[in-house]
Amino acid sequence: MTDDRLAAQFAFLNEADRLKSVLRATTLCDGSRPENSGEHSWHLALYALTLADQAEPGVDINRVIRMLLLHDLVEIDVGDVPIHSANGAAHASTATQEAESRAADRIFGLLPPDQRDDFRALWDEFEAAETPDARFAKSLDRVQPVMANLQSGGGTWITYDVTFDQLQSRVGSKIERGAPRLWAWVREKVRPFFA
Amino acid sequence: MTDDRLAAQFAFLNEADRLKSVLRATTLCDGSRPENSGEHSWHLALYALTLADQAEPGVDINRVIRMLLLHDLVEIDVGDVPIHSANGAAHASTATQEAESRAADRIFGLLPPDQRDDFRALWDEFEAAETPDARFAKSLDRVQPVMANLQSGGGTWITYDVTFDQLQSRVGSKIERGAPRLWAWVREKVRPFFA
Repeated sequence: MTDDRLAAQFAFLNEADRLKSVLRATTLCDGSRPENSGEHSWHLALYALTLADQAEPGVDINRVIRMLLLHDLVEIDVGDVPIHSANGAAHASTATQEAESRAADRIFGLLPPDQRDDFRALWDEFEAAETPDARFAKSLDRVQPVMANLQSGGGTWITYDVTFDQLQSRVGSKIERGAPRLWAWVREKVRPFFA
Repeated sequence: MTDDRLAAQFAFLNEADRLKSVLRATTLCDGSRPENSGEHSWHLALYALTLADQAEPGVDINRVIRMLLLHDLVEIDVGDVPIHSANGAAHASTATQEAESRAADRIFGLLPPDQRDDFRALWDEFEAAETPDARFAKSLDRVQPVMANLQSGGGTWITYDVTFDQLQSRVGSKIERGAPRLWAWVREKVRPFFA
């Protein structure tokens, strides 16, 4: 019983390793290379730990961290959709949502059934972005690339020729939903870049 | 006040980005390139979440995850010391320990004082490896490269010409301290490689 359970848990953990080979449009802060979704997930969990006092009252940071550790695993099958690309700037297409749902079935399906259901529920909650925990997690997922672009000298804002108004609607409005004071602070750091 | 606090928190989070450029001796599971310490930290936090039922009673998995998110940040200044290298196989030298302590002063010192002290205490606890939480975190830090080596066809066991007895003393004995059933299972998977 323990043996079967461990075999399933390691099948999942070994498969998860592939997230380190999924590349994002955003680079490291030093601009040296594209960031991958594994290290991005670590950085976001560290964001949650460090910026916990920016969350609305009642947010459970431990649940936020768990969501962020899991949130990008579907990209192993589907890849990353850059927020400022043509596909990313529109609402996620039904086709992308269906592909991500199939990826979640497959990847979380490697786990023992109780963990499959627990992890899938956290991922579904993150995707729906309706609970306070998920809204805060989504805010951090939007803030971190902004900080990377600021450090690297523009990054994906240059790649995709982004205006301040586009940044506000695609990114700022999402950050505001889960962390309004955070966006108020970051927005003032960002504004000179677009002036 | 909030502004100063956020400035300090982002100074820390931006500095942490550099952990993604610290390379380890271990490769990804597919052997394609060395793993970096940022994505390694993410994978370990996912190990903790997935293998929580392997922990001894009383272990707080949320604290374990926090330790693992922070545990390698000192490598930004000091680099990674491979466990099977000449320096790694001996007990960590006093010089290395002092360098890591100075790195912790500098890096956690970027944070607001309350968080500096909280994060530093977690890192000190991990390094001391005496509490049940820290022992479990250390076990996971030792198990993950074993699984990567198994997947990639030997990895650092070949690089450093490691015997099964050396693996047992350098790695297995440490895993046993925090997760005895886990090592019993992994050891049987590993043994044929060394036969």
